[in-house]
Amino acid sequence: MRVLETCVYARDIGAARDFYVEVMGLKCFVFKPPRQAFFDAGDGVFLVFNPDETRGDEKLPPHGADGSGHVCFRIGADEIDDWRTTFEEAGLEVHEATWPKGESLYVYDPAGNLVEVAPATIWGK
Amino acid sequence: MRVLETCVYARDIGAARDFYVEVMGLKCFVFKPPRQAFFDAGDGVFLVFNPDETRGDEKLPPHGADGSGHVCFRIGADEIDDWRTTFEEAGLEVHEATWPKGESLYVYDPAGNLVEVAPATIWGK
Repeated sequence: MRVLETCVYARDIGAARDFYVEVMGLKCFVFKPPRQAFFDAGDGVFLVFNPDETRGDEKLPPHGADGSGHVCFRIGADEIDDWRTTFEEAGLEVHEATWPKGESLYVYDPAGNLVEVAPATIWGK
Repeated sequence: MRVLETCVYARDIGAARDFYVEVMGLKCFVFKPPRQAFFDAGDGVFLVFNPDETRGDEKLPPHGADGSGHVCFRIGADEIDDWRTTFEEAGLEVHEATWPKGESLYVYDPAGNLVEVAPATIWGK
């Protein structure tokens, strides 16, 4: 079983698109504010929903969360320094963590979700 | 860019483990209540955190959300009927959606997160 859709929530869908495209480098293939922005993520998709919209769905089962969600994107182990530079140049505060099998970086997206980049080695993958 | 970690939140980590192992068929490789349960998910991992614990982290950047998160797991297009049976036998209410390129099923996990199973064809993958 693999994950096909990973989701975080944001009320400002435009700010979410700007962050995930311009900073994270994802391709946005659906942009329908105020409800959603969808991004290509390899063999899956990364979805940002406005919880005020998805909680009120009538055709689909309602969902939506408040607070700080979390997602981690896979990078190469040799890309950590480049990502630190990318985040710093975007004016983001960068948090670092050292694991037994690698290193990861964290920033917060405009909605306050905790976004991590890490090599798959931290999970032995 | 691919997703490495997908996360939802639950306060009852034991109930989350039971659901994701027994109903969803994932392998739980870290079980540390009341904080977290981690599950293998192919080339990535699926994480369930107790937001009351992760919001208070001192070493790692805090995160944690309340409400109904969302995740979708990838299944084969020919597995929909088997999954409907699995969910019904688990006593879960099953919601169905038909998309231009496939069908998906939804249930809620014990914490109220919306869990979907769908073939990758619904995203053209």
